[in-house]
Amino acid sequence: MNTKLQDLISSICPVDNSLEPIIMHHLDDLTKPPGSLGKLEQIALKYCLMTGSDKPQLGAKKIFTFGADHGVADEGVSAFPKVVTQQMVMNMLSGGAAINVLARHAGAELAVVDMGVDWPQAERSGLLNRSVRAGTANMAVGPAMSVEEAEQALLAGIELAEGAASDGFTLLGTGEMGIANTTPSAALFAALLPCPVEEVTGRGTGVDDQGLQHKISIIKQSLTVNKERMNSPLETLAAVGGLEIAGICGLILGAAARRLPVIVDGFISSAGALVACRMNPAVRDYLFFSHLSQEAGHQTFFNLFEVQPILDLGFRLGEGTGAAMAMPVIEAAIKIYNEMATFSSAGISAK
Amino acid sequence: MNTKLQDLISSICPVDNSLEPIIMHHLDDLTKPPGSLGKLEQIALKYCLMTGSDKPQLGAKKIFTFGADHGVADEGVSAFPKVVTQQMVMNMLSGGAAINVLARHAGAELAVVDMGVDWPQAERSGLLNRSVRAGTANMAVGPAMSVEEAEQALLAGIELAEGAASDGFTLLGTGEMGIANTTPSAALFAALLPCPVEEVTGRGTGVDDQGLQHKISIIKQSLTVNKERMNSPLETLAAVGGLEIAGICGLILGAAARRLPVIVDGFISSAGALVACRMNPAVRDYLFFSHLSQEAGHQTFFNLFEVQPILDLGFRLGEGTGAAMAMPVIEAAIKIYNEMATFSSAGISAK
Repeated sequence: MNTKLQDLISSICPVDNSLEPIIMHHLDDLTKPPGSLGKLEQIALKYCLMTGSDKPQLGAKKIFTFGADHGVADEGVSAFPKVVTQQMVMNMLSGGAAINVLARHAGAELAVVDMGVDWPQAERSGLLNRSVRAGTANMAVGPAMSVEEAEQALLAGIELAEGAASDGFTLLGTGEMGIANTTPSAALFAALLPCPVEEVTGRGTGVDDQGLQHKISIIKQSLTVNKERMNSPLETLAAVGGLEIAGICGLILGAAARRLPVIVDGFISSAGALVACRMNPAVRDYLFFSHLSQEAGHQTFFNLFEVQPILDLGFRLGEGTGAAMAMPVIEAAIKIYNEMATFSSAGISAK
Repeated sequence: MNTKLQDLISSICPVDNSLEPIIMHHLDDLTKPPGSLGKLEQIALKYCLMTGSDKPQLGAKKIFTFGADHGVADEGVSAFPKVVTQQMVMNMLSGGAAINVLARHAGAELAVVDMGVDWPQAERSGLLNRSVRAGTANMAVGPAMSVEEAEQALLAGIELAEGAASDGFTLLGTGEMGIANTTPSAALFAALLPCPVEEVTGRGTGVDDQGLQHKISIIKQSLTVNKERMNSPLETLAAVGGLEIAGICGLILGAAARRLPVIVDGFISSAGALVACRMNPAVRDYLFFSHLSQEAGHQTFFNLFEVQPILDLGFRLGEGTGAAMAMPVIEAAIKIYNEMATFSSAGISAK
């Protein structure tokens, strides 16, 4: 493995739980019955531990939406044609996609990153060009990309996280756009959770019953074809992953190394997060999972990975939309921690 | 029944569903797979129908938190002493309660309304004094209040809604503070859903197993003692309700009459909403239910009333905290409707 990558992954440490009693004492002293703000209190605790402080500060927020194409789209696993990836990336650059609206609503900066869209390379205003190649190869017949290409994509994500940390961002969100990308995501879940392909394969943007069966068989074929190339999380990512998934994985690794909290978006982002956590289990400590996707299989991930999403809004869109919706919830949690009165200061009687 | 009250209740009409195809056509033309933003799309549709417009505008928002005391607190049904009601109302006036933080976070104005706190009447800066009486009587031995007192409380709530509509608010939220008020709320659910007392009685701010059994027996006793006085939703509200619950019910009635959408907070607010819906079933069309409370019994309400909450954050605090958390979600839905590009305008390929 690339040395910089290896060093960065090794540098990620679990959070220091010794702060927990101090944080909990403060939360329980706020003027409410202990625990009565449920998830907000859990989030506040987690954010404090992530950042190693009992005086949490939440400032600027940024969402990275990674775009890439997939060779496996040629197998007819998606309801939409491949060209929609580039059309939607352009839509994001024009400000008309759902993630533009929701990032603005959350008060978050949005960065759109080309990790490997299948289009002629050209300057596009507002787009961060980190393209590794013009889409992956078809994983149903061979590896989606080489290990070196996967490393290049990971390093691009890591550098984006490092830049965001240096720029003073205090909360990151992941997102993606890539026609057919629920297919490599399901393959990564099946390989790395691990679990049967059927349990993590859903309808994506809307394939029918026959399409779903075809998608399952293509994923199984991809796992069989690439069996010998999947001896580590990195090799698995290269064999049956995607360039935007690698970008997400890299962003998460880079953020965790800087103790910068990351909100993981939905199904595809969870696949990227899973790869990162398999590279170093301590990564998990720096992640919020934003929402339960309607994509069948996301619940399987949550069950087997033993984490809970913050929201369940019935989304199945990706782009970072779930991460954007979770941002105000995390902000609310930090404000509760910082701005509420305490029982003693407000002169409230105890139980 | 008071004539103004009767006229207002009769004036509430169901929403006009004939707009639905126009609204759905627009939602399905936005650059995302149809339905892929789940609850946001349902909320946008509902808000449009409530306000009778396919060009929804969401502007200023206001949360009304109604405070009152309960005679039934003397039966030892709460983990906290009665004096905490007034202490928490003062905490809200000082800005230190959870609802202050979360209303500010949501960008909503907060009004704290005294409907019947058990304290000496006095001017208190920032408090809206609509006190009907200094707390209800003990419903375990007789009616909590007279029908005339309940009507006075309802009219106070109605006038607050009418004032908010005239002031240009476009979304209201309910909230409450009243030690022991899960007890009358459970009594109202049992009487009006109807259902067994056990299915809607929980631990409130934290009574133990023995306390829970005692609370159930007190609610059953209250329903038996007041049996002859519960021949209408209004009489039931008077017999086993509360002054803040009546205020919430009135606010909801007044808002529905003006076609002003209301977000119902948690367990206690849902009891107020249920009374309003039993007075005129069309009220339901103007309500968003913000969240599923941890209070056992709230799920029973959602099951039997056949509505779905927007959020599940594990809250069991009240005050309007759930309503405040749902406000940014509703705003996001309206922004999605108004600000996203359409397939035709963005030149995106269809399935």
